[in-house]
Amino acid sequence: MADINSQFEIGVTTGPIRGSRKVHVGDRKVAMREIGLEGGEAPVRVYDTSGPYTDPDATIDIRAGLPQLRREWQLARGDVEEYDAREIRPEDNGQLGPDRSGGVPAFPNVAKRVLRASPGRNLSQMHYARQGIITPEMEYVAERENLGREQVRHELDGNSWGAQIPEYVTPEFVRDEVARGRAIIPSNVNHPEAEPMAIGRNFLVKINANIGNSAVASDVANEVDKMVWSIRWGADTVMDLSTGRNIHDTREWIIRNSPVPIGTVPIYQALEKVGGVAEDLTWEIFRDTLIEQAEQGVDYFTIHAGVRLPYVPMTAKRVTGIVSRGGSIMAKWCLSHHKESFLYEHFDDITEICKAYDIAYSLGDGLRPGSIADANDEAQFAELYTLGELTKRAWEQDVQVMIEGPGHVPMHKIKENMDKQLEACGEAPFYTLGPLVTDIAPGYDHITSGIGAAQIGWYGTAMLCYVTPKEHLGLPDRDDVKVGVVTYKLAAHAADLAKGHPAAQVRDDALSKARFEFRWRDQFNLSLDPDTAEQYHDQTLPAEGAKTAHFCSMCGPKFCSMKITQEVRDFAAKQNSDSYLASENIKRETPPEARANAEEGMEEMSRRYKEKGERLYLPEEEVD
Amino acid sequence: MADINSQFEIGVTTGPIRGSRKVHVGDRKVAMREIGLEGGEAPVRVYDTSGPYTDPDATIDIRAGLPQLRREWQLARGDVEEYDAREIRPEDNGQLGPDRSGGVPAFPNVAKRVLRASPGRNLSQMHYARQGIITPEMEYVAERENLGREQVRHELDGNSWGAQIPEYVTPEFVRDEVARGRAIIPSNVNHPEAEPMAIGRNFLVKINANIGNSAVASDVANEVDKMVWSIRWGADTVMDLSTGRNIHDTREWIIRNSPVPIGTVPIYQALEKVGGVAEDLTWEIFRDTLIEQAEQGVDYFTIHAGVRLPYVPMTAKRVTGIVSRGGSIMAKWCLSHHKESFLYEHFDDITEICKAYDIAYSLGDGLRPGSIADANDEAQFAELYTLGELTKRAWEQDVQVMIEGPGHVPMHKIKENMDKQLEACGEAPFYTLGPLVTDIAPGYDHITSGIGAAQIGWYGTAMLCYVTPKEHLGLPDRDDVKVGVVTYKLAAHAADLAKGHPAAQVRDDALSKARFEFRWRDQFNLSLDPDTAEQYHDQTLPAEGAKTAHFCSMCGPKFCSMKITQEVRDFAAKQNSDSYLASENIKRETPPEARANAEEGMEEMSRRYKEKGERLYLPEEEVD
Repeated sequence: MADINSQFEIGVTTGPIRGSRKVHVGDRKVAMREIGLEGGEAPVRVYDTSGPYTDPDATIDIRAGLPQLRREWQLARGDVEEYDAREIRPEDNGQLGPDRSGGVPAFPNVAKRVLRASPGRNLSQMHYARQGIITPEMEYVAERENLGREQVRHELDGNSWGAQIPEYVTPEFVRDEVARGRAIIPSNVNHPEAEPMAIGRNFLVKINANIGNSAVASDVANEVDKMVWSIRWGADTVMDLSTGRNIHDTREWIIRNSPVPIGTVPIYQALEKVGGVAEDLTWEIFRDTLIEQAEQGVDYFTIHAGVRLPYVPMTAKRVTGIVSRGGSIMAKWCLSHHKESFLYEHFDDITEICKAYDIAYSLGDGLRPGSIADANDEAQFAELYTLGELTKRAWEQDVQVMIEGPGHVPMHKIKENMDKQLEACGEAPFYTLGPLVTDIAPGYDHITSGIGAAQIGWYGTAMLCYVTPKEHLGLPDRDDVKVGVVTYKLAAHAADLAKGHPAAQVRDDALSKARFEFRWRDQFNLSLDPDTAEQYHDQTLPAEGAKTAHFCSMCGPKFCSMKITQEVRDFAAKQNSDSYLASENIKRETPPEARANAEEGMEEMSRRYKEKGERLYLPEEEVD
Repeated sequence: MADINSQFEIGVTTGPIRGSRKVHVGDRKVAMREIGLEGGEAPVRVYDTSGPYTDPDATIDIRAGLPQLRREWQLARGDVEEYDAREIRPEDNGQLGPDRSGGVPAFPNVAKRVLRASPGRNLSQMHYARQGIITPEMEYVAERENLGREQVRHELDGNSWGAQIPEYVTPEFVRDEVARGRAIIPSNVNHPEAEPMAIGRNFLVKINANIGNSAVASDVANEVDKMVWSIRWGADTVMDLSTGRNIHDTREWIIRNSPVPIGTVPIYQALEKVGGVAEDLTWEIFRDTLIEQAEQGVDYFTIHAGVRLPYVPMTAKRVTGIVSRGGSIMAKWCLSHHKESFLYEHFDDITEICKAYDIAYSLGDGLRPGSIADANDEAQFAELYTLGELTKRAWEQDVQVMIEGPGHVPMHKIKENMDKQLEACGEAPFYTLGPLVTDIAPGYDHITSGIGAAQIGWYGTAMLCYVTPKEHLGLPDRDDVKVGVVTYKLAAHAADLAKGHPAAQVRDDALSKARFEFRWRDQFNLSLDPDTAEQYHDQTLPAEGAKTAHFCSMCGPKFCSMKITQEVRDFAAKQNSDSYLASENIKRETPPEARANAEEGMEEMSRRYKEKGERLYLPEEEVD
């Protein structure tokens, strides 16, 4: 076995994001990030996915894993049993030999005993919600979604396309949303390290980052750091899409150290267990893989149970056929055996497992379009309606569900995806990959997809799966992951603004005010990526004095429109604009007359302007 | 004077874009770019803004300027007169002394004699159009907009929000669009080097790139190359926003070497002439600047004539006041003098100049919102309705007009901008800066604005002004300009797709097909940025063999969904999917029964599948 102690020379990324500090809010001590501002401005609290890694007071030791925030809550419910975990086998790590040579070390303190529901019980948050029980997880979510909104309320403004975003999120609201299936709180009982979060149309739009093991995964800290790095910049959940060797052990390291829900596509690992031959997959091997991952603590499973045999030929005329890996595996299995998908046939059996651990379904869109040409076609929507049918079957067992969506869709066909998903799947949360709105920009597909993601997020998609600049071309590196996460964070935020989330605009306003007042450091710190913002600024104006200068490199001191308009806080601002300019409101109907009246005030204004030193904007206290 | 010959060591960027060749199409020899493909695929023609710089057969000498494509057409109309150009004065170059020390050299062959309309004549394309004359410029535009559409027609698919995009663009269609003001062809008579292009809602969405002189502009080739570099990646027009010294000479170099229309904001230069003191601006100085630039060949002028005195106080309560440079200059002038704007007062005089040279108006939105908080406010729309009034006044003189738009707008308020613009300005082309859909991502504002640009382009905006990653932070470098242009090119293309432009999807389909068939080189060459696409690919799989490998680094050979689905060209594709799967169409209404019937066919399919060697997709010739 590789020497564990040699694995931690690099370690994971820790330390606060610049200008921010970690705060813990409310009874449930919900972690948030507080951005301190200059000039007497109130600090701004933002949603914080980064976990203890950005808390200078936390001790980080990835060999020990994170504290078990939820363990006490779970045990207090009295519905779990502890039992001996399944033995790990060589095929779990891709046929890695028992000496694990070439592999990552095992996590030092793997739990030999794990939790599941006591016989006849159901651990899902949906089950509690439907019993009328408000769990600590729901309380945590409520506090988290409010972002300190009690301090800074904001006028509602937006078009939510039918979403029912509350002015203030109460634990009861969270319970109700989970009970009716409109939101999920992914929370495997064996992942007590996770900080509860909700995915649903009436909450803040979330984003997911995908990670996967490296071909040579000898440095386990690097594998863990992919997750830590993603959540540092804002990933709300992380999917571990590893294939090949070391799958099991890498996942164990990630889950034990992850404060966000972890999702997987279990068919990837099942395929490894049968040597990569899709036809050799069986329900038994798949079921064993689900149990293996359930015991480790995977919070949601992508299950491609909607790829039914009869739909596969619908893809034959497509420009890009089936582009989902899971979808193509199942398509090949179905056609090879000429049988209905075992995932579809055993769906209720999978649901039983989900119940026992509280694993949420992420019903996979194995037939999603892989090109503009294939968007919104028969195959795609046939699968979607089957996912709707499966949603209802899962809900009958009180199991949480979200629905995966495309893919590649031109802008005018995006809304149809959302509308059909809402209709077919009874408002279960939608979780889309982009969509990319054109195929012609490989190398920029974080942007082609960010455009679609912002729109579908606005229309009601609850979580957006990120795309990096390397999509379609290669494996993302650290910089690509950051660019992907920040792009999706801004797309999700744009969606929150457009939906009218009552807390969303606080940060925009704070940043814009900082910009107008030339508080450069505040502008950097309020941005999604303070380091890049400052670096770009300093490329042109590196001097420290430029951080407080009342101009910037774009226009220089003479031309600066912000500087000029600083002078325009005119006396007319308050009383005059209300009276004098009220008449301007009618200018569209009767411009000449109305204006003639209005313009009579000009002489008087000229006099007063000169009295005020010809400054255009005045500080509020000087307004008379 | 600096030594001219020493200026050309670096030169400008020349040579074809990889995988492409220059072709000249139709009677007007319209330049297009043709991307050659492998595997017997037909080449794809794309819109080409890059001018002779990408033509290996062209001789590039920036001291000579480009060939005068339009000169013959202009003279043939018999409505121009030649006259002595205005003398260049030191203040034209920002008080640069007559020895020009520290400045760029003068363009070697500045025209001493320039053109304008003969007395009583009007050179504007709109004027000809309204006379029923189809100009060579209109013919050129028609050919250009069709993109070789005769060869590859495409089914109409899209939601154009009321735009009337024709299946095929005829010269008469162009004439009609220009006549009714719905499109412009910016074409100053003194810029005969420009290749005609149209900006209008029923044509392909265009993009603009801004450039400006460097603080130390000693290398004129660098200044010219900013323009050349922008158009290489797809900028349809370029605005020269230079300030300070060397303005006049830099502009001369740019125009003489530009195959795309050049726009300016004349108030910037006028302000330089009065030492940067807004209050000292006069109509006479401004008028002189217009003539100066008209004689050089500027194709469109941004004129902030909508910043009227009564609107300025409406900005006083804004979070970010006035953020337009031109807007703030005029606001300060208006309030200082307490007079109506001289641009507004002298609007008809400006129109006379535009008529004489065929300069298009780009009516500036000096009161555009600079933050999400200020979007769609009273000041913004008051100005917009004034721009509508001015549009009609310009149209009375047959002068071409487009309207500038915001800025910073959350997604749910974007469409209102488009709707109000169409209503207020009689369908004159809209030309927007982004809009940025959130303020919280400095460093990524090409993306925050690309999201808004794609949407407003879809809704009907005719040209999108790019934003680079350095927006709000610093001056863009070469890489930033490229990223900005490519981002806007993909946003414009996404808009074309969504509007249903009949030629737009050809390139997406060609690229997707190349992707599906693992023609990696074609995939790179068809992308907006082939160099970056290949570079990203090679970071993971550098071997030359990987360019033809039927897998990529994302999944590797075993997992590749494209490879699996290559196998899925099943016999069911043609005849069976039509009969067998037709019954699947009713599954949404009556799933269980319909499926039972459909599934009876399974046994038969299984038998035939095995006969065909268990391949899932078959080549078309093997389908029985």
